[in-house]
Amino acid sequence: MNLYSETPSTALLPSGFADLLPGEAEAEARGIACVMEAFSRHGYERVRPPMLEFETSLLSGSGAALATQTFRLMDPNSHRMMALRPDMTTQIARIASVRLQDAPRPLRLSYSGSCIVIGTAGRESDRQVSQAGIELIGPDSAQADAEVIILGAKALEELGIEGVSFDLSMPGLVMGLIEGAVSEVDREGLIHALDRKDASAVAELGGPVAGMLAVMLRAAGPADRALDILAALDWPPASRAQFERLAGVVAVIRERMPALRLTIDPVDFRGWQYHTGLCVTVFSNTSREELGRGGRYLAGQEPACGLTLRPQALLKAAPRPSPRPRCYVPMELDQDSLIALHRAGFATVPALGHESDLTVEARHLRCTHVWQDGAAQPL
Amino acid sequence: MNLYSETPSTALLPSGFADLLPGEAEAEARGIACVMEAFSRHGYERVRPPMLEFETSLLSGSGAALATQTFRLMDPNSHRMMALRPDMTTQIARIASVRLQDAPRPLRLSYSGSCIVIGTAGRESDRQVSQAGIELIGPDSAQADAEVIILGAKALEELGIEGVSFDLSMPGLVMGLIEGAVSEVDREGLIHALDRKDASAVAELGGPVAGMLAVMLRAAGPADRALDILAALDWPPASRAQFERLAGVVAVIRERMPALRLTIDPVDFRGWQYHTGLCVTVFSNTSREELGRGGRYLAGQEPACGLTLRPQALLKAAPRPSPRPRCYVPMELDQDSLIALHRAGFATVPALGHESDLTVEARHLRCTHVWQDGAAQPL
Repeated sequence: MNLYSETPSTALLPSGFADLLPGEAEAEARGIACVMEAFSRHGYERVRPPMLEFETSLLSGSGAALATQTFRLMDPNSHRMMALRPDMTTQIARIASVRLQDAPRPLRLSYSGSCIVIGTAGRESDRQVSQAGIELIGPDSAQADAEVIILGAKALEELGIEGVSFDLSMPGLVMGLIEGAVSEVDREGLIHALDRKDASAVAELGGPVAGMLAVMLRAAGPADRALDILAALDWPPASRAQFERLAGVVAVIRERMPALRLTIDPVDFRGWQYHTGLCVTVFSNTSREELGRGGRYLAGQEPACGLTLRPQALLKAAPRPSPRPRCYVPMELDQDSLIALHRAGFATVPALGHESDLTVEARHLRCTHVWQDGAAQPL
Repeated sequence: MNLYSETPSTALLPSGFADLLPGEAEAEARGIACVMEAFSRHGYERVRPPMLEFETSLLSGSGAALATQTFRLMDPNSHRMMALRPDMTTQIARIASVRLQDAPRPLRLSYSGSCIVIGTAGRESDRQVSQAGIELIGPDSAQADAEVIILGAKALEELGIEGVSFDLSMPGLVMGLIEGAVSEVDREGLIHALDRKDASAVAELGGPVAGMLAVMLRAAGPADRALDILAALDWPPASRAQFERLAGVVAVIRERMPALRLTIDPVDFRGWQYHTGLCVTVFSNTSREELGRGGRYLAGQEPACGLTLRPQALLKAAPRPSPRPRCYVPMELDQDSLIALHRAGFATVPALGHESDLTVEARHLRCTHVWQDGAAQPL
């Protein structure tokens, strides 16, 4: 419930930037706090990188993939170019490999904050994006991949989000198959066709592996069925290792969290920019928006796996927490009564003068309760 | 306690921007959450403006005073200039006067977030500054000024910060005195002299009010003594009103929070950029840094009074919260045991494989406890 009647005047802000008003802002903050608390309980320690860095460090290594989405500005002090972070994962990787290079591995880090992206002209999408995520740095195993997914699922559970599903993909599966089998010339067109799930173009461009690719296209869906279909294929060694890792991750999750809905899209490439292994996208049946994404990458020279949730999307998928009841109180109300009200979960809204009828003013201020006869009375 | 040995490599980040590492980042987040919770309990509702706005809206009105501290960048979509917020108060004023123009007054809003300032070349100061604050919009009274100060003091109390003092000033007191009495030519030199507390220059430039200014200079200090001295002065009407408001604010605070340390500097002008009445700076005897500041200003056309705390400074003044104990647990530990550990306040750090000696790995990962014989054993 929004306590305020709102005058839309979005023209005041650049497209993709928004004010969160009372109710919305509180829900976002509570959502982030809930997720971060789940991460902390499971051993992930919070770090907080800055909003800006030198372009050379922010966009080096795996960050280069995000260069076109990044705002740059000149530092008048050092005369060097700085960049506003479009993503936090690359910052966490920097912290892990430089500031915390001597910290023991596996290193478990969590973070939350806002990122700024340039966006696409003419397309109304958020350009200030909240993130809350985890990175598990050091190990390279199915166990590590699964830990990140399971913890993500637990965090969403605590937010009360229902019908969550994790969509897994493994870009190396296709890459291992078409390398050597499909000419460089056809490869780009083929990847584009796989991306569009265009079976006839895949058949045309797939050469010797067209048959296997057709099976992979049809395998997309619930994880157990997909793995059964994929297991029957005759993989080249590079793809075989990728398939086994994927099956291993699913096995660990099945053992630990049997009810979690897992799907596999074995030909998915979309939007994976710096990932080197398993990729994961999170959805819920209460929202069409992606709730988060993550996967395996290199943090400097080290194997790492992470998951980033998007609090703005979580808010739309989660049940809205009930607002704190508000009790209007006289200005002279004693400290003990105030504390008792706070302990009972009330926000207290004090009168700023001596009022003859507190109830009128309490209604005017849209309070839920008013202090009368020594107690909070509902309005 | 910082869990990690740290390699300083500040050259990686622009001056004034920093990473917060495990321990520091958690302490900052808990500090902000604690302050925001205090604000919420006292009826202040959270809003969250964006990091960037169009320059024209961010730097209009009272925001103009901050123009020289503001980073600007071009919006490639609208081809208009945007600015990174150097402060949040001007954003809250915009929200109050536009988005929430129909919300009932008094309007109580709270906020937290990061601001970015250009800083001064060659001076090492933070350029990414966290803020957590409140604004009380609508009323113009001693009661309203006092509410903001009292709530600020309560928030600092909850953080465990000791020896807090609020330093009050009222720039209008001096302005009302020198307008008409001191020539335009001498006025700037006089204000500069007052700023430096340079009694001889004040005597020289003060003309007919030099005597009163000398008394005001000597009055600086504990509020009750200062008010006694100031009360005896023969104020012109404009300054008399300012004096009475100042005395009124102190009286309300004395009644509600008698132990709060209040000081008055009746000639203070430093750093007040958009304020129109009472100004306040917050200190603690556990830190030399300013913990926050605030005062009375105009939100659009409306009277408003606010206080902004600086979480980075609060952290240095507050006792560091004790870190969550960390228990190393075998990978196959059942869900019920995990939940019991979390309920008991532990973070659980799971093994990623089957280990022969959990204790060795627990020590390596700097855990405080290890799971053995069905319980968390301290290491």
